[in-house]
Order: sequence, then structure tokens, then C-alpha cells
Amino acid sequence: MTQPFAPVPLSKAFRLINHGPAVLVSARHQGVSNVMAAAWACALDYAPPKLTVVLDKAARTRELIEKSGYFVIQIPTAAQIELTYEVGHRSLNDDPDKLAHCGVTLFDMAGHDLPFVRGCSAWMACRLVPEPHNQQTYDLFIGEVVGAWADTRVFRDGHWHFETADPSLRSLHYVAGGHFYAIGEALDVAEGKAG
Amino acid sequence: MTQPFAPVPLSKAFRLINHGPAVLVSARHQGVSNVMAAAWACALDYAPPKLTVVLDKAARTRELIEKSGYFVIQIPTAAQIELTYEVGHRSLNDDPDKLAHCGVTLFDMAGHDLPFVRGCSAWMACRLVPEPHNQQTYDLFIGEVVGAWADTRVFRDGHWHFETADPSLRSLHYVAGGHFYAIGEALDVAEGKAG
Repeated sequence: MTQPFAPVPLSKAFRLINHGPAVLVSARHQGVSNVMAAAWACALDYAPPKLTVVLDKAARTRELIEKSGYFVIQIPTAAQIELTYEVGHRSLNDDPDKLAHCGVTLFDMAGHDLPFVRGCSAWMACRLVPEPHNQQTYDLFIGEVVGAWADTRVFRDGHWHFETADPSLRSLHYVAGGHFYAIGEALDVAEGKAG
Repeated sequence: MTQPFAPVPLSKAFRLINHGPAVLVSARHQGVSNVMAAAWACALDYAPPKLTVVLDKAARTRELIEKSGYFVIQIPTAAQIELTYEVGHRSLNDDPDKLAHCGVTLFDMAGHDLPFVRGCSAWMACRLVPEPHNQQTYDLFIGEVVGAWADTRVFRDGHWHFETADPSLRSLHYVAGGHFYAIGEALDVAEGKAG
């Protein structure tokens, strides 16, 4: 599969998760790569862009992040609903072929030794900002975004274009079990009020 | 305006913000109440339910939270898009009648000395979990949810029902400026895959 994508300026990176999508978290350490799903990821700062993500102690991806100090937060699409569900419900500890069984194809981004998931709508390479108390007490991890990219069919010029892109590119918003909502219609504050 | 609402079991409270909506944050101290908008709020734990919210140092609501130790996180609806934008762009410091000018009507919930915003789809009363380092360094606040309620037209039996409720009750997902997306259609993992 080929997919058109372009870098996103770091000053606009927060917009990739501002609307609260479910994300995929991936990491690599000593040749071992893993991908998990997370509903609890959130922007934290604009400049430099930072974000938070909650990672359960049982997650193998968490261990890879703690060891490597880096991770990727990427936005899965409606077309990837099964993949998103599967990576969130299978463990690399039980299934060494987890990624293949979940339909995940990884690709590389020049300059980053990190596993990126093909088919997502956006990707953020993050450096772990170590905060041992948060990590241990709350499973809360902070990342500084050091690189960002997006599929230009749905994010360009610093904005999402869900309303004009193919519905298969919409972001997923997690509820519980196998249930999600897709992002919906664009709503704008009435002219004259916003200003 | 009357609005049908019911308590939400604390075990289901995380679902109120699991899908990443924009929220309104409100607080009261010594008779002063304020309401602000926040895009950066996120679930943190299930039991007891906790959440994070990012509050800028310039926000008057932050000061009320630091002094009172309590706040409300509530989910505004598509019908409240102007109200949400306005409370996020006016300051109580500049306009003592901010809430009236933004169209906010507050109501009380028995047992909680907190300002709840009428017309929202859900409300969570939160106790501040003090973490001075996070608050000072990252503007990151942690709350433990001590009470939760929802409008039964759109959240009942522990689930959102956006797909069958009136579209005016849909949650708002913030982009930038006066731009939001409403939550969209329900998507489910294919039968047989989920389980």
C-alpha cells in the first residue's frame, strides 16, 4: 500500500490529537517492536509539543518505551478498527507473531529508529520525558513530540479535513469492548461570535 | 430548562470522557464561581476513577480549584458550541459578569458545593489529587471522580447513545479557533472478532 504523507510542523502537532482520538502506541528496543492501542492519550503542551499517555504495567510496549526512551503515537483510521481492537486485546507475551496476526505492517521514517504503523492518518515520534513518580503511581507517561507526519488526504495545511476526506480515514473514538465512534461533522462557532 | 438526568455508577464514569470530548471545567471558592473550556482532559484510572486536565496558569478557574480542592468536569453538547467557545475566550478577570454574558446557567447538586453547568450531557464532581510538581511544571491536574451524572436522553445503562439521541446532544471535539467536530457514527468491531 502506498500512502501520501508529509511532515507536520511541530507547532501544529498538538492538533493531531486535540479532538481526542484513540491512538496506537508503538516502540522498539533491541530489535523487538510492539504496538498497542490506547484511549487515554492527550495533548499536554504546545511548544515544545508534549503529550500524555496512560500505559498499563502489563503492557509489553510500556517496557520497550522505558528501555528505549522513545515511542510513536499514531492515529488509526476507521478502516483500521479491527487492527486497533486486536492490538489492544492480544499480547506479544502470548503471541510472538502478534503484529502479523493483527494485520500490522510497520515502516521506517528516516532518522528515527522507531516502528511506524502503515495506514494510520498521522504519526508523532516522541521522546520520553522521564517522570518516575507519575509512571509508577499513575501509569502516566509524558512524551515530547520530536517529529510529526500526516496523511495529506486527511490532514494538510495544519488542519484535519475529515469532512471532505473518505470516511474510511476518520478517526476512532473509543467507548468500550468493540465499540467506537467515528469523528463526525464539522461544527463552527457562528461568524461574528468567534473573534 | 428542565433536563432529565441520573447518577452514573463510578465504575462507568471513565466512559463519559473515554471518547475524547472537549469539556467545561468549573469551580467555586468563597462564593466565586467560574467556568472554562478545556480540550486537554483525559481519563487516568478506572477504580477509583481519575482524570487529568491541563489548566493554564492564567486561568481564574485554576486558582479556584487550587484554593477549594474541588472541580467539575462536564461535557458540553453541540447545542452549546457558542457557550463553550465563549467561556474559553473570556476571562472572569476582565468581565465580572462573564458567566451571564456567555449564556451559562449554573445549578446545584445535593451534597456538593460546586457549580454545575446546565444543559451539558454529563457531569463529574472531582476532588483534586494534589501533585504540586505536575501542576507547576506541566499545568497538569489530577482529579478523583467522586460523583457522576448524565442526561439520560444520551447516556444511560453505562453507555452513550449518540446514534439515537438528538444531534444537538452530541459531544464536541475541539480543533482550533472556532472549529469543532461533533462525534459521529457508531462503529463496531465485526462480530466474531470482538471477543
